[in-house]
Amino acid sequence: MHFDFDLIVIGGGSGGLAGAFRAAEHGARVALLEPADLGGTCVNAGCVPKKAMWLAAGVGRQLAFAQAIGFAAQDCALDWPVFIAHRQRYIGNIHASYQRRLAEAGIALLPMRARLIDAHTVECEDGVRLCAPRLLVATGGHPIKPEIPGAELGGVSDDFFHWTAPPSRVALVGGGYIAAELAGVLQALGSRVEVFVRGPRLIESFDAELADQLAEDYRQAGVHLHFNCEVGAIERDGERLRVRGKGTTDEHAADERFDALLFATGRRPNTAGLGLDAAGVETDKRGHIVVDARHATSVDSIFAVGDVTTDLPLTPVAIAAARRLMDRLFADRDEPLDPDGIATVVFSHPPIGKVGLTEAKARELHGDDVYTTRASFRPMLHALADSPQRSLFKLVCLGEKRRVVGIHLLGEAADEILQGFAVAMKRGVTLDDLHDTVAIHPTSAEEVVLMR
Amino acid sequence: MHFDFDLIVIGGGSGGLAGAFRAAEHGARVALLEPADLGGTCVNAGCVPKKAMWLAAGVGRQLAFAQAIGFAAQDCALDWPVFIAHRQRYIGNIHASYQRRLAEAGIALLPMRARLIDAHTVECEDGVRLCAPRLLVATGGHPIKPEIPGAELGGVSDDFFHWTAPPSRVALVGGGYIAAELAGVLQALGSRVEVFVRGPRLIESFDAELADQLAEDYRQAGVHLHFNCEVGAIERDGERLRVRGKGTTDEHAADERFDALLFATGRRPNTAGLGLDAAGVETDKRGHIVVDARHATSVDSIFAVGDVTTDLPLTPVAIAAARRLMDRLFADRDEPLDPDGIATVVFSHPPIGKVGLTEAKARELHGDDVYTTRASFRPMLHALADSPQRSLFKLVCLGEKRRVVGIHLLGEAADEILQGFAVAMKRGVTLDDLHDTVAIHPTSAEEVVLMR
Repeated sequence: MHFDFDLIVIGGGSGGLAGAFRAAEHGARVALLEPADLGGTCVNAGCVPKKAMWLAAGVGRQLAFAQAIGFAAQDCALDWPVFIAHRQRYIGNIHASYQRRLAEAGIALLPMRARLIDAHTVECEDGVRLCAPRLLVATGGHPIKPEIPGAELGGVSDDFFHWTAPPSRVALVGGGYIAAELAGVLQALGSRVEVFVRGPRLIESFDAELADQLAEDYRQAGVHLHFNCEVGAIERDGERLRVRGKGTTDEHAADERFDALLFATGRRPNTAGLGLDAAGVETDKRGHIVVDARHATSVDSIFAVGDVTTDLPLTPVAIAAARRLMDRLFADRDEPLDPDGIATVVFSHPPIGKVGLTEAKARELHGDDVYTTRASFRPMLHALADSPQRSLFKLVCLGEKRRVVGIHLLGEAADEILQGFAVAMKRGVTLDDLHDTVAIHPTSAEEVVLMR
Repeated sequence: MHFDFDLIVIGGGSGGLAGAFRAAEHGARVALLEPADLGGTCVNAGCVPKKAMWLAAGVGRQLAFAQAIGFAAQDCALDWPVFIAHRQRYIGNIHASYQRRLAEAGIALLPMRARLIDAHTVECEDGVRLCAPRLLVATGGHPIKPEIPGAELGGVSDDFFHWTAPPSRVALVGGGYIAAELAGVLQALGSRVEVFVRGPRLIESFDAELADQLAEDYRQAGVHLHFNCEVGAIERDGERLRVRGKGTTDEHAADERFDALLFATGRRPNTAGLGLDAAGVETDKRGHIVVDARHATSVDSIFAVGDVTTDLPLTPVAIAAARRLMDRLFADRDEPLDPDGIATVVFSHPPIGKVGLTEAKARELHGDDVYTTRASFRPMLHALADSPQRSLFKLVCLGEKRRVVGIHLLGEAADEILQGFAVAMKRGVTLDDLHDTVAIHPTSAEEVVLMR
């Protein structure tokens, strides 16, 4: 069989790009197929524009602090079109950087859709067929709406990034990390936000105590949270929208009118029209490509990474998976990604981060062998400004040696504090190791090594 | 001999308080002698009010960012008296908390000066004598001025905390961490700042590359830095002050006129009138009490911690030393403080932190066995606001395994990022361990685990 390339990558998001670059580093001839902007969800409708909006919202919150501590600052709103120009310039620079790096690496970028024909062949939308001994699928995912009446009246997170002004009143449907992030950003940038959460709390994969404190911080900031409230329908009411609960106990839900509504109710893998069946690639019932710990699919020559698989849907996970896979395929190094000890941060206001086990999970696995300790405090700026927002840090430890198996941080700078502790946890630190490290004073981070 | 207490602590700063509390926890009867406000330099004229001013300056900088990214914010100044009321309320709460905790712990607080009479006896300023089998000296230090003509025209850092408005033009003399911190705060709060540094760079104990980048960031922010410029005299010129160089090559120095001048030219231990000679306690030529690794002085019954010794002048070091000492004296636990791996942060704008060896020190000790890696980048908010400020992170590694022996961080959030990595470094992490940890995206902290 004639091979045009050593590797064909379908999808130019974080995982696909990381795989293409790493394979090229190992000397492979690589083709990358991507019909849309490079960088996938992360760069175009996820991490990067989200963080930019989060930063802008943070600056907005600082303006409120400014007034509270003695600056003669006035209330003022963000001019969204101005900020979006900055945001998109930043993103444009990332696109340009990818283009340059692809060219430097000699990777063939084909800006088109493609589908699998067989285990080695890809057909581009212009009809050209390309063959390679190995194919990597990294097409990512997309947000979905629930199948309820009026769902077409609401948008999804992708739509949020097209908004050019904050709606006066906005409803968010969902309780996961995207809903938690949108709630903080929109409230800080001047919207009045209501969140309809099916379950009893926000971000359920996080430690319950911290999720509850985040809800309290949000209430203090003016966000209205409706828990145990499943949305049954969206209705138009003149210019505005109305949320109908399904068996809700919250009467309030049906009374409000909203200028806009966003669903943050989950994501699905981008597998439609990919030809997975034709190639014989197995998927699960939600459409994710089934992969093993080394990111091999059911077809020997086809691999997959990122949100199109059931891996944790995190950019750095997709990147790490792609790099390790390419090291195995092209450089004979085999170090599969350790799925434990992956730290995640939700860019709520304040941010919340975790690595390892929640207290609930630890108790389920280890019963009474679990020891927890926590620090609840106001960061100095919040105390100076007399803001009620509290930070809550919590450690989950195991056994007589109190090995740290879970680190949970809610509060200002939690997003930046967590990384180093995630490294330390991977090295098996105990509570004593934390106490033996001299604190950096005065910071929030020092609370982690001072907890008794 | 009759003993009134099991321990007498002279000095109610961080070290003295920590020692008193820990001893009381172990059941000791403790007296604490402190004529001034509790909390010492840290709470009253150091870490705490400094951090408060740094935070206010940070809010001021955010106001500038606000304008740059699209908020309709106006230039506005901080009303110092308003902010100082917040700051002193915060400090007052700390004082009240100490008072409450001392009462709860049953520690006798004697608000007066004291001097040593012999190895077991202290005489209070009212003439009362107290005896104890063990004495702890923790009287801290104070800032000094150089012995040059006109020194009386300038202030020291203590005076800065009494200012109620920013001077229009201010000169800072010194290049250590206090000068670096004051420069950032004053420039951000509206002063025009010039710094006169005797040596070739700021904060010489930090890695030279980072110190140079901080100088560049300061220049971009408008701070004027004069290196290799020893100040020979201060002169009055009408309402203003003039700085005379001593053999300076910088002609500029003598031309400017300043509204205020602060010396940040070092600190000395508070030992005057303490009766150290009478008790036979040995001091070095700069007046520091000489202690061993367990904080014992030349007199068996007398111990010392904190800035009155030659320990690193850091609050958490004094606290850790005092606690370990009390664990040894009253609970038979002997774990002396490890002087390596103590992380320190300078609250410049942006902050700079380090733990372990600088590149220069590592090369001096280990020659070619040293490997360094660095990341230079603009944090996202700075890129969005088109601010030139860059972050510079640097790792110093050793040997084939590339064990991390130095971590150097300059940039936004460096103060919060460092703590966890300091824990990890104490556990002996290698560069591979960092790379094996999945990044938290998008943050500044992830750059530490992504450096190649």
